[in-house]
Amino acid sequence: MHRNDSTLTSPSATALATLGEFGLIARIASGVCSGEGVVTGIGDDAAVTTLSPGMQLLTSTDMLLEGVHFRRSWHDPYRLGRKSLAVSISDVAAMGGIPRWALLSLAIPPDSNLDFVDEFMRGFLAMAAEHGVTLIGGDTCSSRSGLTVSVTIMGEQLPERIIRRSGALPDNDIWVTGTLGDAALGLRLAEGHPGRSSDPRNSGVEEVGFLLNRLLDPTPRVSAALALAEAGVITAMIDISDGILADFGHIAEQSGVGGRITLADLPLSATFLSHTAHLSAVPYQLVLSGGEDYELCFTAQASSREKIVDCMKKCGIAVTRIGIVTRSPGVTAVTCDGSHYTAQTEGFNHFT
Amino acid sequence: MHRNDSTLTSPSATALATLGEFGLIARIASGVCSGEGVVTGIGDDAAVTTLSPGMQLLTSTDMLLEGVHFRRSWHDPYRLGRKSLAVSISDVAAMGGIPRWALLSLAIPPDSNLDFVDEFMRGFLAMAAEHGVTLIGGDTCSSRSGLTVSVTIMGEQLPERIIRRSGALPDNDIWVTGTLGDAALGLRLAEGHPGRSSDPRNSGVEEVGFLLNRLLDPTPRVSAALALAEAGVITAMIDISDGILADFGHIAEQSGVGGRITLADLPLSATFLSHTAHLSAVPYQLVLSGGEDYELCFTAQASSREKIVDCMKKCGIAVTRIGIVTRSPGVTAVTCDGSHYTAQTEGFNHFT
Repeated sequence: MHRNDSTLTSPSATALATLGEFGLIARIASGVCSGEGVVTGIGDDAAVTTLSPGMQLLTSTDMLLEGVHFRRSWHDPYRLGRKSLAVSISDVAAMGGIPRWALLSLAIPPDSNLDFVDEFMRGFLAMAAEHGVTLIGGDTCSSRSGLTVSVTIMGEQLPERIIRRSGALPDNDIWVTGTLGDAALGLRLAEGHPGRSSDPRNSGVEEVGFLLNRLLDPTPRVSAALALAEAGVITAMIDISDGILADFGHIAEQSGVGGRITLADLPLSATFLSHTAHLSAVPYQLVLSGGEDYELCFTAQASSREKIVDCMKKCGIAVTRIGIVTRSPGVTAVTCDGSHYTAQTEGFNHFT
Repeated sequence: MHRNDSTLTSPSATALATLGEFGLIARIASGVCSGEGVVTGIGDDAAVTTLSPGMQLLTSTDMLLEGVHFRRSWHDPYRLGRKSLAVSISDVAAMGGIPRWALLSLAIPPDSNLDFVDEFMRGFLAMAAEHGVTLIGGDTCSSRSGLTVSVTIMGEQLPERIIRRSGALPDNDIWVTGTLGDAALGLRLAEGHPGRSSDPRNSGVEEVGFLLNRLLDPTPRVSAALALAEAGVITAMIDISDGILADFGHIAEQSGVGGRITLADLPLSATFLSHTAHLSAVPYQLVLSGGEDYELCFTAQASSREKIVDCMKKCGIAVTRIGIVTRSPGVTAVTCDGSHYTAQTEGFNHFT
């Protein structure tokens, strides 16, 4: 990005073509406040920031493509802006890190309405403000196909508080925050395949709203992750973007262990249960492999149970033990009678 | 990115669909060596790095879209991989920074040949190795339209050595490295509009190769920029991506000054001159507004001339004084007789 001297504030529907690249950058920059550690933000060849004393840098990047990760027909620009940053903040949180700065690249179809961009940015910057993140730069260009969003997040943390995927030990408990499967059920609703009937209008409006919001506006579990990192009681952590089976699978693989997840212990929301009550069985494949929950999955010694529950209670975040780390590799889900549950699909995997 | 435990090395044409997302990430990670300051590279929710003592962090991001920034019909994957990183390294160089770490996101059409991705990565990692940059993470996904590349670069530098756009002073000299206009002429060749005739085969093969290479495989001026930053003799700097008029315009605007560029002083390559010798006049619009040269433009006091020439001689980089910073705003180009040259177009600007 190149400039930060804008006085453009009118949220008019002026075409992007009139505004131009540098006008758009100025318009975006005008909504950005400075933040902790920012020496030079938007407006030079590179942003300049300083880490807090003793801290290491955490960096992650995510790309979201129209037609692959979202559809503008069901993802409103405000929540799309929020989610674009939330999924990256979630990555820093999953390391136990403090999110600090973001870069945003937007490839925009040239016939786009400026209101769309304004609403997107309003959502992005609202999510940023909620987590103390400052937008420090980016890139804007015209797209000849759909909207493409690329976000890089930077965070920091003391070395001893950074939590990796590789630290899980046999007999550790497997924990998750919040509830699982809501976003996957929301995606089915958004795509016109509601669980209850073929017409989403038959579902309760509040139920549908809750499930769609879990998909379209996920909450990165920053405060919970930071509390866990500071408490020093967990051995490995990941955020659940591809489904608990796949994502705990990454912990298992990198830790050289396996895991057994108990279906009956998986935390399901009341809305998920009521919305799928008409089915002959709980659709566990949505819970295990649906993805996009952006909850945390972590492991810890059994002796830390009380501390973990206390810690999460202070954050106001629900937490549930869902299984146990095994010495033997492979991740399995087991039913009440101990038999293996075979998921219909694994987590989301591009290209396959 | 999620894994770094690959043993896949065969450069076969295996379809991406067979490899899958995690196989591709493992394949990419297998080619990456660790580097300075890297604590945790590819394979966790976020990368972990450490800045050198006393240094500030420099960050920049660029997105390249097929059909907008490049065409696969004339940009071979090896040089596309090199350029994808080079343009970001150039941004860190333009701040006087030491490039360190990169994140790479690729949205790949699912029918892509794996050889294309392998060649792209071979070029990307070759450019990285040339500048001491380590790939520490990224994102891969399938695209439903063309190839999209997003690169974030991180660098570092001591605060007192960081050069911004905002420091130019009236009566400073305006300098550029290398030659200007080659990449713009190369683009015309690539697009089938050669300067000399309608058939590029009429041009000398070496000439065309040089001009195309300036477009397809630009060299970021890292050593020159670092030498200038360490010498402490320059007041402002930018890399020339949108053409010298537009890019010096950013320096002028952020410094609250203007500038007068002397056409006859603009450094042109012998190839540029011979390839355009049949025209009635030098096509200065390519030189002033063509963009993509990725040379450095910087300003300095007249008393620093000798130091600058010495400094660049040690780096083996040509350097030329092309004009003077003015107190009055606006950037003009003047001919030998002092009259204003009116460029046909300004620098490249998305959406317009």
